[in-house]
This record gives sequence, structure tokens and C-alpha cells, in this order.
Amino acid sequence: MSNKVFIFDSTLRDGAQADGISFSVEDKVKVVKALDEIGVDYIEAGNPMSNPKDMEFFDRIAHLELSQARIVAFGSTRKSNISPQEDAGLKALEKAGTSTVAIFGKCWDFHVTDIIETSLEENLNMIRDSVAYLKSLGKEVIFDGEHFFDGFKNNSEYAMQCLAAAAEAGADCLVLCDTNGGTFPSEVHDITRKVVDTFSTAIGIHCHNDCGMAVANSQMAVEAGARHVQGTFIGYGERCGNANLSTIIPNLQLKRKMECIPEASIPRLTMIALTIAEISNISLNKREPYVGRCAFTHKGGMHVDAVNKTPQSFEHIDPEAVGNRRIFLTSEVAGRGAVISKIHKVSPELTKDSPETTRIIKRLKELEHAGYQFEAAESSFELIIRKELGKYRPLFELVSFKVIGEQPYREGLSATALIKIIVDGKEEITAAEGEGPVNALDKALRKALEVFYPEIAQVYLIDYKVRVLDGKSASASKVRVLIESTDGKDTWASVGVSRDIIEASWLALVDSVEYKLIKDIESKFKAYL
Amino acid sequence: MSNKVFIFDSTLRDGAQADGISFSVEDKVKVVKALDEIGVDYIEAGNPMSNPKDMEFFDRIAHLELSQARIVAFGSTRKSNISPQEDAGLKALEKAGTSTVAIFGKCWDFHVTDIIETSLEENLNMIRDSVAYLKSLGKEVIFDGEHFFDGFKNNSEYAMQCLAAAAEAGADCLVLCDTNGGTFPSEVHDITRKVVDTFSTAIGIHCHNDCGMAVANSQMAVEAGARHVQGTFIGYGERCGNANLSTIIPNLQLKRKMECIPEASIPRLTMIALTIAEISNISLNKREPYVGRCAFTHKGGMHVDAVNKTPQSFEHIDPEAVGNRRIFLTSEVAGRGAVISKIHKVSPELTKDSPETTRIIKRLKELEHAGYQFEAAESSFELIIRKELGKYRPLFELVSFKVIGEQPYREGLSATALIKIIVDGKEEITAAEGEGPVNALDKALRKALEVFYPEIAQVYLIDYKVRVLDGKSASASKVRVLIESTDGKDTWASVGVSRDIIEASWLALVDSVEYKLIKDIESKFKAYL
Repeated sequence: MSNKVFIFDSTLRDGAQADGISFSVEDKVKVVKALDEIGVDYIEAGNPMSNPKDMEFFDRIAHLELSQARIVAFGSTRKSNISPQEDAGLKALEKAGTSTVAIFGKCWDFHVTDIIETSLEENLNMIRDSVAYLKSLGKEVIFDGEHFFDGFKNNSEYAMQCLAAAAEAGADCLVLCDTNGGTFPSEVHDITRKVVDTFSTAIGIHCHNDCGMAVANSQMAVEAGARHVQGTFIGYGERCGNANLSTIIPNLQLKRKMECIPEASIPRLTMIALTIAEISNISLNKREPYVGRCAFTHKGGMHVDAVNKTPQSFEHIDPEAVGNRRIFLTSEVAGRGAVISKIHKVSPELTKDSPETTRIIKRLKELEHAGYQFEAAESSFELIIRKELGKYRPLFELVSFKVIGEQPYREGLSATALIKIIVDGKEEITAAEGEGPVNALDKALRKALEVFYPEIAQVYLIDYKVRVLDGKSASASKVRVLIESTDGKDTWASVGVSRDIIEASWLALVDSVEYKLIKDIESKFKAYL
Repeated sequence: MSNKVFIFDSTLRDGAQADGISFSVEDKVKVVKALDEIGVDYIEAGNPMSNPKDMEFFDRIAHLELSQARIVAFGSTRKSNISPQEDAGLKALEKAGTSTVAIFGKCWDFHVTDIIETSLEENLNMIRDSVAYLKSLGKEVIFDGEHFFDGFKNNSEYAMQCLAAAAEAGADCLVLCDTNGGTFPSEVHDITRKVVDTFSTAIGIHCHNDCGMAVANSQMAVEAGARHVQGTFIGYGERCGNANLSTIIPNLQLKRKMECIPEASIPRLTMIALTIAEISNISLNKREPYVGRCAFTHKGGMHVDAVNKTPQSFEHIDPEAVGNRRIFLTSEVAGRGAVISKIHKVSPELTKDSPETTRIIKRLKELEHAGYQFEAAESSFELIIRKELGKYRPLFELVSFKVIGEQPYREGLSATALIKIIVDGKEEITAAEGEGPVNALDKALRKALEVFYPEIAQVYLIDYKVRVLDGKSASASKVRVLIESTDGKDTWASVGVSRDIIEASWLALVDSVEYKLIKDIESKFKAYL
């Protein structure tokens, strides 16, 4: 049996069923790019029938060039007593234009008779017709056997007939779904083995986490011969979530020598998990296996000593294998490799062991502890390095600002900002109106700076994100603001953290304009440096 | 083989190894009471050797009357080349005064030679002597075979000799520990089966979640004959955490008819999980199996309709069995089924087809299109229903507010808000300072309202979230603010959307206080309605 396990990500479809998750079309494109970059085989991107936004997305994605992943549109078998040609869902699938489709069909007799209220025979026809119709359109067809395990336990003969109907009609893969998430690992193993022994079609597994065993159930199915695993990249999904692919992939690939994604992608698992969490606007669970911030964090003194001696004493894998890092909660010694490459941008002569490197890492850790995160804010990161190395001088001095928001207000101009700055001893005071306090402050700052640095006129913000770091203090919670800026040529991102959203935004704005000005100085005077 | 599975909770010992967890003596007493109340068999309460706070706790707990649980002090086998009588750790265990103790001993040959640097033979003596000594003091002795699975895989003969040394010295239970969390379910099953077949002593299991399979591994060990399960009640623990008992207990008891805790305690699982999370000062993961807020939450329209028809269609157990509840989220993918259940709260006589229902759904769709999301904001949703049905009148009128943020500022008071409202023709103008504009406005609004509605004093915000909806307009992006409030009894959530973060927050704040006031009016005057 082959070692290749096909990875099918449903973050954009089943993941979007999670409480608190809502993707814009723009978000979806970003998730697709991240998943393609890491090399999953299939990306289930939505149900073109149920959601008009999904149809817009399929139009949009058609022009995107992907290196590896196949985009999948999701739907169901036709409704009872109509032809596949008349079925609105199958039409929508055709219209979505993907070369691969996934359709679910009922496999639990009780669902056929009591939920969709049709006959067992007609349900088999619905499966057969729908698969055959989609195959006649030239599509790769993945058949999701909904509630397969519950169905098998209740009426195994009928559940197997459902798979047979799909297989005979030409389905390319039969996926066994534990839709309610109530099945146990040993059951999944034994039932999957029976299916694998019965059919020559490829067998897949789709698990939910209602008993906390979705990852283990997926593992057991692969051990029983399944070679297609469905899940969501960080486990988001309805109720307790779907099987977590960022756990399953390293389990299979690092510990069972199966081939899930390209070998070179494994060290990017942590970064991609963080990226998808960020797009979903959810903080990644810090205790997540492999990719969580605490996955290799040691606190107990004995454990810290032992890991210092021999890492494998209390680590099941090398954290760097998945792009994560070891953290000792008392004495931290992590991350030099990653930092040094950024330091080299500013000072190529420094090494991993230079005292400056140590000082920069110390400063970074302090800031991270305070809630900063630099993965997506390289311009703030560079400014910190410059500040520590003395390769920085402030390009303006803030004397004061005042931001006023009020109601009632004129549409679009709900806030006013006044600002006073000094550049080379010259004062400039000015004001601007905007939509909300941050917009007003952003405009006022750039207006004041333009007097001294006309190139600031080219800069504008293209993204603005707010993340509340600790819900506990409610409206006085600490927030992290991330902004992305462009001058038409380059884009860069900066970050600010504060309990006051205006201050957090201010810190990120200042980094953004300073980075731009330094960048210009560098390119203008490179020859002299 | 007996159906009784002994439950051993290590929240206070292994759980305290988690990043972000730190228990005071007072906290520990509260956790012990909660765990005893739900009926676990053993509570591992700390290591009297490593932590002076733990010794204080053992003194304190000696006088506590418990109905079921046995308190366990934790330590290790003696150091090499001394007698048990001389060993400081064993002395501390004796001094802790518990009738049950748990000691770990090395079972992985590499750890013996490379970490504690002694001979394999001496390690066997250490196990034998330490168990025998503690037995001679009349204690129940649980032997934790550290790294048992890794040890077994490396040198099975030696790992079994370690267990044999403990068993021969009189240990009451041999616990197989997957200390690094790297073992797979089928391995746990097969190795546990071999141990169960070899020894007549009771066998236990202790799993970590580094491969996301701690719950499944515990389950497989029980299937192989283990009858003592160690874990932490909500899964906290070093790195990725320990096996989650609030999942394992219902898995075993509801689905395998094993006896873990008293039958009457099962419906208290959710409450005890919330209590322990609260004491630990960590919010319970909403996707936690059985006890998480989303464990029985349905979003997709088809699923909502089916659960309304027959709950078992998309629920693996009845949520009330574990003291949890079913939630239907309101969203663009949800159908009328989810909406009607909320409408019934306000007007029970309306049906799916009433014109009022159609109007409410239309309004909902408009607001969702504008960026609102009601799935986690049931109080704003109820207010919309009330407004559409004419069952609402404003409880105050805003005349104006002004919010001023400025720099430089005094620490913690970066913003000031002035507000003027009218209630029943009476004006109230007031002001407040806060950390950031939203915090200042929140304080000022509640200060003004308290003059008319003293019950507002009980309300405070417990969560505040900001989501930027479209990055395109950058600092003038539309934002959605979600706040969660409590009055000590209930909690509720509300939502606001605007291009101005202050306005978005204002809309959510107003919904929060209005919902509270309407809730109080309803409960006070229910008899008249």
C-alpha cells in the first residue's frame, strides 16, 4: 500500500461552520494561498449553493494560479424524485467550475427516513445519479458518506450499499464521515478496515472532535488503510471542531514516515497555522500540539535541566522540525537562528554570539511578553534592531496630540485630531478630521510630516487590524494593532501594543512612517554608506 | 474485569506545570472541594519536596472533610546510593501526612544512564526500596512509571523489570506514563495489554497531549485493561497538556458504561469544568468536548433544521446529560429554524411563516450585510426582534458625548469622556476617565445611567473584541465590536458595527445595558405580563 496520504483541508467550508468564524472573499483567497504554499492536496472552499459569497469566491479563485492544491466545491446528492439535471445544488456545483467536487450523501438509514424523509432505495438512487452526473461532466468526484460510522453501527448492510452506489457510479474516493464525532478509535479502525477490504476505490476519513479523539480516529483510519484525510488546518469546525491537520500531518509524516505534504513544508507548519489563525481572527490555542506557542515550553526545573542535557528526554520531536521553538519559562534561550537573519539586514558583521545579538533577543522577549508579535510586523522589528544597535535617530518629535470623538456628528467625520510635532527644531501644528479617532490621527500625523518630508504623501495604509489580547479587563483590555502600509512600490507592516487603542495605533503609525523615511534615506545614500 | 475506573486528577500538580497557571493555597483548597464534589477518587495535590507552598497546603488540607476523594502527595523514588530513610523527598512525603502517595521512577534505560546517571541495577533498587519504605509507613502507594512507553519501545525487558520491582515491593497501582506524549493509540493499547497480562497489580495510565491523542490513548489503555486513569480535569498541563478528564469521564461512563464518578455527578461536569477554569483564571476553551460552550452549537441551516426535528441527527449525546446546552447560532448560513427559537423567547405565538418572522429575517440580513454578526451576540439580536415587534422603548436618550484622547497622558488615564443623557425628561451630564476612549466612554455611560437605574452598578464587561471587517480603507475600516457583559448571575453579549471604533463600541454598550434593564423588568414583572 502506498505511503502517500492525500490531505484535504476544509477550513473554508466545515471550518466556517465554527462559532466566531466568518471569512470574507479576501480572507478566503489568503487562506487558499497559505494552504497551497504548504502543499495540501485539496482545498474545500465552500458550498456554491448555500451562500452567494461562496459563488463570488469561485469566480475569483478561477484565475488564481496554484502550485499544488486542487480547489473543491462542496454540495450534496440531488434532492429526491428529481433528475440530477434539474437539481439546483448540482447546477451550482457545475457553475462553480472546479475540476474536483465533493458531495455528501446519507449513509445512516435513520437520517434517510426521518430527516430527509425518503425511501432507502431512492437515497441509493440519489447517490448513484449524482455521482454519475458529475462524472459525466468530467469532474473528479469525492463522495462524503455522511454519518457513515453511526450508519454502519445501526445498519451495516445499508451503509455499505450507499458506498457501493457511489463507487459503482465512478466516485474517485469514498470518505467515511464521523459526522457527529461520537465514534471511538477502535471502532473507526475496525469499520475502516472492513471498507478498505471491500472496495478498490480510495478510502478517506473525516472526523469531528466531539469525544476529543478526532486526530486519533484519523490516525486509526490511516492505520486501517485510508489514504485521504479530511480536516481543517487548525481544527476549527462546528461544535468541538474537525480533525486538526496541523497535528495529523506531523504525526503521520514525522512518526510514521507517510507522505502528506512536501518534506520541505514540514518546518513551515507553525507559521502557516499562525497565518490561518490570524486571517480567522482567532488566537491559536497556545497548547496546540506541534504548532502551539507552549508545545515545547518547559517549566519544571527538573525537566528544564534534563532538556538542556538531552532534548529528547522531555520532547517527543525536535521543535524546529515543525518550525516551532523551545521555551524555558524561567531562563529563555530560544530563537537566535531566526533573529540573526534580520540583524544581518542592518549589521552583517554580527554573529549569533555577539553581545548585541543577546541584547536584541532580550529586548524582543520583553516586548513579546508585553503582547507584541513580530511575525507579521517586520518594519517594527527592524526599527527595534536599529534602536538597539544605535543605527536610529527619531525623525520627528511628538509634542502632543489630542483626539476628539463626539456624537452627534457629521457623516464620515466623527473625529478630529490636533497634533504638534518638531523636526530639526521647527514646530508644526495641524489638525485633521476623519472617520473615527485613529483615522483622524493618521491623517493629522501625515499632514504634519509632509511639511518636512514630502515623500510621506505617497504613503497610505492598506490594512489595519486590531486584536484584543486579554478579554479579562474588557474595555480596558490590552490591544495589538497591526497596520500594513504602502508607498506604491513596497509594502511593510508595523505593530503597536497598549491598553489604549489610540496609543497602540499611534505606535504602529509612527513605525510605519519612520520605516518609510529610513528606507528612502538608505536607497538614496547607499553609495555613501 | 470490573467496570470501575479510578479517576486520578492531577490539576494541582501536573496541571500547575502549565504556562500561565499558578495556584495559591486558597485556590488549591477550592479545586479540591470542586473535585471532591464531583466524586473523583484521587486528587494529586502537589510535591511537598519541591514547593514550600505545597507543604503549607498539605497542613491545611489535613483538616478538610472530603466525601470521597483521597488526597495524594507526589514525589519520586529515592536518590541513588542513599537509604530511603535519608532521602529528603521521601521524608517530605511522609511529612505531608496523606494516606496515599504517588512516586515516579525511571523506566526508560536512557534516562537512567544519561539523565540521572546511575546504573540500571541501582535504579531498580531505588524503585524497590522507595515503594517498600512507603508501604512500611502504611501508605497506599501508586507507582508512576515515568516514560514507560518510550522505555518499553527502547528496552522492553528493562521497562518491565522496573514495574516488577515496584509490584514486588507492594505498590498498589502501576501507572504507565507517556511522559513525552509521543505514543500512538495502537501502541498504547498493545503495550498496556502486555502489562495487564503480566501483573496482577492494578494498572493505570497517564497520558500527555503532544500528539493530540491523550484522550484516545487513555481510552485505548482502558480497553486494554487499565482501571486507573490519570489526567487533569480540563486538560491543563505542561506543553500541550495532560489527558482531559472532563472528556474521558463522559466518554467512558456515557458511551462504555464504565463507572468513573457517581452517576448523579455526570450532569455537573460542565459546571465543575467552568469552576476549575475560573479558579485557574483561564477561560475554558469554547470548543472543549462535552463541557465547552460550543460543544452543542449548530450553525449550518440544514443541521439546525435536522436537530430541531431529531436532536440525535447531529448530536452524539444529549447536552443536558453533561449539564451543557444546545445553542443555535444565527448567521447567514442558518435558516429560519434558528431564528424562530429566538423569536419565541419574545413572542411565543409567532410561527416560521408569520409576516413578522419574514420582516425580522429581512432586517437580520440587512444588518449582516452591513457587517453585523449575531451568532455570538444574542442580546443585540433579541433587541432587534423587540424593535421589529414593537416590544421595545428606549430606556434613555443620548443628547451628546465627547471623548478625548491625548498624549502625553497620565498612566492608565489616557482618555476622558463627557456624556449627557435624558431619562424620563430628566437630564444627567457626567464625565469619566479611563484607559483609552472606549473604557472612558463605558465608565461615563454607566455612571450617568446609575442615577436612574441603580441596578446598572452590578453590570461589568468581561470581554471586548474588535474585528476589522475590510482592511481596504485601513484606519477608516469598518469595525465590529463584540462585548460580553455580566451582572454576576447571567452573562450576555452584544455587537456594534461602524467605521468609527468609538461608535461601534457605543452601539454594543447601549445594547448591553438595555438588555440588562429589560431582563430585570421582565423578571420583576413577569406575573403581570
